[in-house]
Order: sequence, then structure tokens, then C-alpha cells
Amino acid sequence: GVLGSGDFARSLAVRLVCSGFRVVVGSRNPKRKSSLFPAAAEVTFQAEAVKKADVIFVAIFREHYSTLCDLADVLAGKILVDVSNNTEINHHKESNAEYLASLFPACTVVKGFNVVSAWTLQSGARDGNKQVLICSNNQEAKRTVAEIAQVMGFTPVDMGCMSSACEIENIPLRLLPAWKIPIFLALGLFLCFFTYNVIRQVIHPYIREQKNKLYKIPIEVVNTTLPCVSYVMLSLVYLPGVLAACSQLYYGTKYRRFPDWLDQWLQHRKQIGLLSFFCAALHAVYSLCLPMRRSHRYLLIETAVKQAVEKKMTIWVEEEVWRMEIYISVGIIALGLLSLLAITSLPSIANSLNWREFSFIQ
Amino acid sequence: GVLGSGDFARSLAVRLVCSGFRVVVGSRNPKRKSSLFPAAAEVTFQAEAVKKADVIFVAIFREHYSTLCDLADVLAGKILVDVSNNTEINHHKESNAEYLASLFPACTVVKGFNVVSAWTLQSGARDGNKQVLICSNNQEAKRTVAEIAQVMGFTPVDMGCMSSACEIENIPLRLLPAWKIPIFLALGLFLCFFTYNVIRQVIHPYIREQKNKLYKIPIEVVNTTLPCVSYVMLSLVYLPGVLAACSQLYYGTKYRRFPDWLDQWLQHRKQIGLLSFFCAALHAVYSLCLPMRRSHRYLLIETAVKQAVEKKMTIWVEEEVWRMEIYISVGIIALGLLSLLAITSLPSIANSLNWREFSFIQ
Amino acid sequence: GVLGSGDFARSLAVRLVCSGFRVVVGSRNPKRKSSLFPAAAEVTFQAEAVKKADVIFVAIFREHYSTLCDLADVLAGKILVDVSNNTEINHHKESNAEYLASLFPACTVVKGFNVVSAWTLQSGARDGNKQVLICSNNQEAKRTVAEIAQVMGFTPVDMGCMSSACEIENIPLRLLPAWKIPIFLALGLFLCFFTYNVIRQVIHPYIREQKNKLYKIPIEVVNTTLPCVSYVMLSLVYLPGVLAACSQLYYGTKYRRFPDWLDQWLQHRKQIGLLSFFCAALHAVYSLCLPMRRSHRYLLIETAVKQAVEKKMTIWVEEEVWRMEIYISVGIIALGLLSLLAITSLPSIANSLNWREFSFIQ
Repeated sequence: GVLGSGDFARSLAVRLVCSGFRVVVGSRNPKRKSSLFPAAAEVTFQAEAVKKADVIFVAIFREHYSTLCDLADVLAGKILVDVSNNTEINHHKESNAEYLASLFPACTVVKGFNVVSAWTLQSGARDGNKQVLICSNNQEAKRTVAEIAQVMGFTPVDMGCMSSACEIENIPLRLLPAWKIPIFLALGLFLCFFTYNVIRQVIHPYIREQKNKLYKIPIEVVNTTLPCVSYVMLSLVYLPGVLAACSQLYYGTKYRRFPDWLDQWLQHRKQIGLLSFFCAALHAVYSLCLPMRRSHRYLLIETAVKQAVEKKMTIWVEEEVWRMEIYISVGIIALGLLSLLAITSLPSIANSLNWREFSFIQ
Repeated sequence: GVLGSGDFARSLAVRLVCSGFRVVVGSRNPKRKSSLFPAAAEVTFQAEAVKKADVIFVAIFREHYSTLCDLADVLAGKILVDVSNNTEINHHKESNAEYLASLFPACTVVKGFNVVSAWTLQSGARDGNKQVLICSNNQEAKRTVAEIAQVMGFTPVDMGCMSSACEIENIPLRLLPAWKIPIFLALGLFLCFFTYNVIRQVIHPYIREQKNKLYKIPIEVVNTTLPCVSYVMLSLVYLPGVLAACSQLYYGTKYRRFPDWLDQWLQHRKQIGLLSFFCAALHAVYSLCLPMRRSHRYLLIETAVKQAVEKKMTIWVEEEVWRMEIYISVGIIALGLLSLLAITSLPSIANSLNWREFSFIQ
Repeated sequence: GVLGSGDFARSLAVRLVCSGFRVVVGSRNPKRKSSLFPAAAEVTFQAEAVKKADVIFVAIFREHYSTLCDLADVLAGKILVDVSNNTEINHHKESNAEYLASLFPACTVVKGFNVVSAWTLQSGARDGNKQVLICSNNQEAKRTVAEIAQVMGFTPVDMGCMSSACEIENIPLRLLPAWKIPIFLALGLFLCFFTYNVIRQVIHPYIREQKNKLYKIPIEVVNTTLPCVSYVMLSLVYLPGVLAACSQLYYGTKYRRFPDWLDQWLQHRKQIGLLSFFCAALHAVYSLCLPMRRSHRYLLIETAVKQAVEKKMTIWVEEEVWRMEIYISVGIIALGLLSLLAITSLPSIANSLNWREFSFIQ
């Protein structure tokens, strides 16, 4: 059974019908709404729909839960699936599912399907996340809903008892929260170093020697900026660990909580590290592109022509050769090690390592 | 207990014995077959074997299930594990496990172990997929079989009730079905663009100016072909979404099913996108290899010598320099963004993103 | 309830209090120890603590389990969570959890939380592995502990019945065991080929022609060494399969166990293959860096100047051009194929392939 006639209710009915379930939709105005639902779904008054169904999806806004109170008698003993989401994180004191359970103590409430979008429901779980997080205080009801999710083509994930409902309801509102600060940090650092490098490599030679080096901006300036950003970010990954250790030494205990700013910083280390790796990888690609450029070719030919005209046969500078060989070879090794760190931060790899192995690699 | 004496039955017996289980094998001709099984497994007549065992693996072809009907009395109350596979997808109306359950209503049937190969059973789960998909209508029996799988070194995955049996039986017959069309599409596009580029870059200069440019085929021609394929594939990823939106606007509803061809196309977007990324990545590697080639070096030296002999001191063309700098820098940014898309399509990353984050990145 | 006052016990208490549980700590000397625990946790005598709690975490060394025997009466009927680890793999005949269960037959013992470090407990599961492996012979107790783990922010993983306890206890002692042999093998091969290449490319020309080629060591010599290592490793991936097949043909059966050395070798194929891919990838990066070097630039200009002075207009050698074009293009294709193999060895990708698809790609 499905209560509600909104977008999600309709998509849910479409998907349930497609998966071979018999669906009955409860509406306050079944005549007007029946055209919105697939033909195979029976649309009827709420009380009738509830009577016919064992598992009832409550696809109604939290604000309207109380309108169902008239149905309390027919709902008794049924499984209610709360599919609702909030518009803000932790908007209400208790989660929607717990509120529903408090309104209908005679029902078994299961939280689930709220992490799935109406579009995914309609078109079937194709790409992206196929998981449906489910929680309930009743094992049997949880299993029933999990099997419905399985038949609908989703992967049910048991999230334990009702106290997880709040966490499950907050998930769809999340938008990469752990990445916001690291990304703004990286952009800020990039801007600073980019400005400095433009002044140094383009504006300064123009003012001093009237040389037009504007062509350096898209590649050469970016390429000297990236490793600076990467280095600073990498040091920001390891700095908070040192500060935390100092704080523990100062206070003489491991069991005192860190100040909030340090705690936040410690939590963002993984993201800062991945951005540092991203900058390092981009720097590698930019550097490899340098000899491909026309400007590189022209400068090479010009030097050769100058040498030939002046009949200078050798321009080999041993020191410069060594400097470059060592610079490149250390760079490759550093990038290889950073890649290893990045690979172990993939969830499926990290889950196959114990903490001793993880610490060893770190 | 194991019924059957084929390859799978023997591997199953080997593995069960190695995992510390007491194994009894039921055969119609125990004397002749006993040499095929490990010494620790007792080989006896079918009826006797069934009496001694609580969990019985039915390693027999579906066609021979009916020969077990004589054993119906001794089998009653036991757990039967159906390990069979089909030779064709959806060959029979009902799954093998459901057919077995209908023949022996007094038994508890569990579907499982069919996704594991005889080789993996024998040698232990080393690499590749260690998952054993299990389904049954009986929770207790499912748990018992799951624990056997766990002890044997596999990862049991609960696939819900018996109606999933059909899906589980189809899995081993699958051979990358979602990749067939995208791969042929990519190959077709590659051939077309390759032919065009060979004509343009090799045959045309030969006919017009008698210049031998055959050396360009392995790298330069391939390198101009790859981005064309990549671009067309990328546009094929986003086109069906636009067509779907148009179809919804035309019919005035989101709840009408798309035509089959559009539905198929929408389902292959991820694979087309990954192939587009693969071509783009190959293009990047080919481009980076260009200055490494002898031909590049010879052309460079020849130009330098010509300039030197003619005493032309400068060949700097500002427009060409800029064109190249911008081309490379845009290319690197595009590849970086495509890499991000490719990384989020890894199953373990996709599962950690909610649909809001997934849509945001897309 | 928590029994014990060590590092792990304290971190556990901190985490439980932070997750909203009421915690009672049992100690033999509650007055002295109470300052070590968070204020919200009640520290009292062991017998009293046990009376007040339903789920008791036994954070005591295995050697001291017997000191709890006085509490046998109050412990009866409670859930005991064994969180202990060993100092050596398979140090004792039976696992700690099974030993605890044998001491307190009236209790329900659950193994869990031993794979989590004290640091992760304190600071919350931030990065790395968030899984808590749980096993027990009692489903209800296992579910209770799993829900506690869930609320604490970990991902509980059901590992079946008590016989898995030994395996779970060995996990934290593991330090990449499958990688040791392959890494030493790769290092050994690298040293051999590196020595050979130094002699051939640096020492030999110095002795014969007094030419100083020392600058070649950091990049050029490493770059000729890497593909040799990669090739030998790749052949070591496929050789044991051939040997295994020969052994099966010779003995006329698939069901005879392989000799131990072959078995070991077969088990390390994945790691050897990944190291081979790593060397190949490094070789690609080194090769791409070649034209970026000063030495490459100087040699190019010197050749150009020499040609110009001698007025030789052409140095095009068709054979060398072709050799290089084919070498690079075959190299890129080989690296592309190896990347595909490496990607399918990621756990989350491997788990989405059946063995037919896995074998097809291999």
C-alpha cells in the first residue's frame, strides 16, 4: 500500500508494479488522482487501501502525519514504511520515523527508501548508489522491507535500530560536507601562488626588459603554481597530527578532547591529502606537456641556429644536467608514493586493510 | 552431504573436507566413484548418505532432479542446497531452485554456491569474486548455509527470498552484457575516423606531392583519431538525457515509459562514458609520446639546420604559440574532469555518495 | 559495562559515553582508577559493575581471564564481548573468545571490536577501515553488539559462528603477508638488472672510450631496468599456471594437491602482477620525462649545430623512425591492457564480476 499522491508516491507505485507487487494507493480523492498512477495500481480511499495492504509506504510530508490519526484503528498491526526526508539537517528534535512511531504506537515503523530519488525509483537502479538504508526496532518488519527492496532491484543495508533514523534522514541533505573547506583552501592557495608567479614570471620581465612573456600564463605559470599548492596542502595533512601530539604532551593525557578547530582539521586530513595528490598529478601532466609546445620548439631551434652561426660546438653544462636529472627522478618517486596513498584511500581498498597495515602505508 | 559425482560435486567435497566438515557423498555406484573423492569423504549409497547428513548439496543437473523422488521420505526435513546453473539465460520458466522446492515440499531449499566455479572451490577463494549469493524462504536454513560458506572462506551475501533464485542462476551466464554495444560502437567509430585520417594525412599527400608519410600511421593518425571517438562517445552520453526530456515535454508526463531503444541507450550511458574516458586517456598518453619519437627529433634538427644555413635568426610565430598553449591547457583540464567522473563510477565510491552528490559531480 | 582499566578499556568507555550509552566500569581499585575514565562513566567494583550492565566488554588480557572466575555467578546470563588480541598469530590452540566461553558457560560470548585500535575508538571512525568484525554462536547477542557498533559509528560485519573467532583474532597481527615475497622478489630483480645496466651503459663506455656518462644513472639506467623487471614479473604471473597444468597432466588428475611451493606461488600471482604493472607504469612515466631533460636538449642542439656547420641537410633514417614509432605504439597498448587488469583487481570491481567475466578479462 502507498499513502500519498505526490511525485515520490507515484514513482514508488510505478516501481512496485514493475517489480511484480500488487499495489493499492490510498488517496483522499481517489477519482481525481487515479489517472496519475499506473493502471495496474488500484487507487482508492485511504481507509480501504490500508485495510487491503500489509506493508504501507507513508509518502506524506511530516507535517501531514497527524491527518492519518483517523486511520489509527485500521493501521494497527501493519508495517509503516517512513520514506520522508527533511529540508534541513536536524530540523526537528526527533526523526520523522520516530515521530510517526510515537503517533501510531500500535504499528511497526520502518525507516527506508528516503535515500533513493524519485527518478531512480521510476527508471530502476541503474547507476550511482543502489543502496537502500533500512532501520527499525522490529527485526521481522525490517527483513520484510529489505526483501521488498531486493526485489525492486536495490541493495538493502541494515542500519540497526530506530535510533539510526535521524542519521539516515540527514544523508540525502549532505553535499560533500567534508570537501568544502579543503576545496576553498586549495583554491585560495592556488590564487595566491598564481598571482605571485604571474608577477614574477610575466610582469617583472615586461617592466624590466620590455619582454612579452604573456604566453607563459596558461601552462608555465600554472605549472609552477601547482607544486607549491601541493606542498603546502601536504604539510597541512601532517601538521595537525603534530599539534595534537603536542597538546597531549602539554596536558599530560590522551583522554582530553582536542579543541574544536584541531578536531575539525584532523577530520579533513584525508580530503586535504587527496587534493594535494590531485595537484601533484596535474603538475606531472603539465610538466610532461612542456616539450610538446610550439614555444619549446621555437626556443630550441633559435638556440641551435645562434650556436651554429657563432660556430660554438658545445653547450653542455654538467651542473644543469645533473640538477634536472635528479629533480625529475625525485619527482617521479614522490608521485609514485603519493599514488599509493591515494589508492589506499579508496573505500574498498581501505576496508581490506587492518589498522596496522593502514598505519604502515601512511 | 553431497549428492552427485560430477566435477562440481568433487570440488565441493574437497573444499568441505579441507574446511573441517565431515562429508558424506551419495552416489548410485559408490564403489566405482569412491576413488574420485578425497579419502576423508565417505562415499555411500544415496539413501544412506541423506540419512547421515543435515545439509545436502544437490550437485545434479536439473534434468535428473526427478530421479531423487525415491528419496523423498528420507529427505523430508533436511536442508537442500541447490548449486545448479543453467546453460541459457531464462531457459526454464521457473528457476532450478524453485523447481527443486516444488518436487520436495517437505524440504527446505536454499539456492547458493552456483556463482562459484569448481576451480575456485578446489583451490580456495584466492582472487576475483569471493561472494556466494544465497537465497531461501527460510531464514534459519539460509543462516546455516551462510555459515558453511563463511567457514569455507567465501563471503555469503543474503539475496532475500526464493524469488531471487532466477536472478542468481542467471549471473554465471552473464558476460559483460552492458559492454557489448558500447564496445562495438567505439570500434566502429574508431574504424571510420581512422580511415578518414589515413586518407587525409597519408594517402592525400602521397598522391598530391609524392611524399611518403606512412610512418605517421602507428602514432600520429591514431592520435588524431582517438579524440574524435572520445568526443562523439561523450556526446552520446548526454544526448539520450536530452531526448528523454523532450519526450517527457511532448507527452506532458514523467510517468510514461520511454521507447525501448531510448531506454536501452539510457542504460548504457555509464559504459559509453567510461570508453570515452579511456579514449581520452589514450590520446593524452599518445600526445605525450610525440616529442619522444625519432621523427620529431629529425624534423627539429632539419628545421634548425635549414634556418642556420639561411641565417634566419627567428621563427617565433606568436599565434601558433598561443594556439598550442591554450589547446594543451584546456586538454589537461578536460582530462582532469573526466578522471573525476571515472573515479566516481567505481562501485565503492559511488556507494558512498548520495544521489544529490552524485548528480552534483555529474 | 567495561571490565578493565587499560588503554583500550578507557578508549572504549570514552567512545561509548560519546555515543550516548550509559557506561559502568568495573575495576578492582575503583577509587584510584576513576580519574582515568570520563566523568560520565561510573567506576565501581567489578561485581557491582557486572550487576548493573547487560552487555559487558571484557578488556582484559587472556592471561587474567581466570581472575574473573569469582564473578561467575553475577556474570551468568550476560553478554560478554571479547575484545582481546594476541601478540602472535595462532599463539594459543583455541581463540581467546572460545577460551572465555569455556570459562563462563552460562554467559553468551561475542567476539568483536578487536580489529579497531584504541586511537580509532577515541577519535571516532574517521578514515581507514570502519568495519567491526563480529562473531558468536548466539544470533540475538550478535545483533545486540552489532547495533552498539552501529551507534558508535562503525560498520558491523557478521562473520558467522564462534569458529571464526580465531581468524578474527589473527587479523590485527597481519602486516601485508601476501606482499612480502613479491616485494623482495621485485627488489632483487631490480638490483640485478640495475647493476647490469650500470656496467653496460656507464662503466663500459668509461673504460673503453673515457666518456663520462654518470648523468645517465638516475633516469636512463633506471628506465631501462624497470621494463626488464616488469617483464620477468609478468612471466612469473603466468608460469605457475602452466606448471600446475603440467603437474595435473602428469598425475592424470585435477584432485591431487599441488606441492607447497607451487601452491604458495599460485597464491601470490595477483601481487606479482600488480608490482609488474607498477614497474610498467613507472617505466612509462620515466620514458615520457626523457625529452624534458637538459641533457636531451643539449644533445639535440649539438647535433643540429654539427649538421649545420657541415652543411648536411638531412639526417632522416627511415628504419630508426619506424622502429621508434612501433615501439612506442606497442608500449602504449600493452600499458593500456595492463591497466585494465589492474583495475579489475580492485576489490569493488572484482566483486561485481562473475568468474566467467573475470576469466575473460584475464
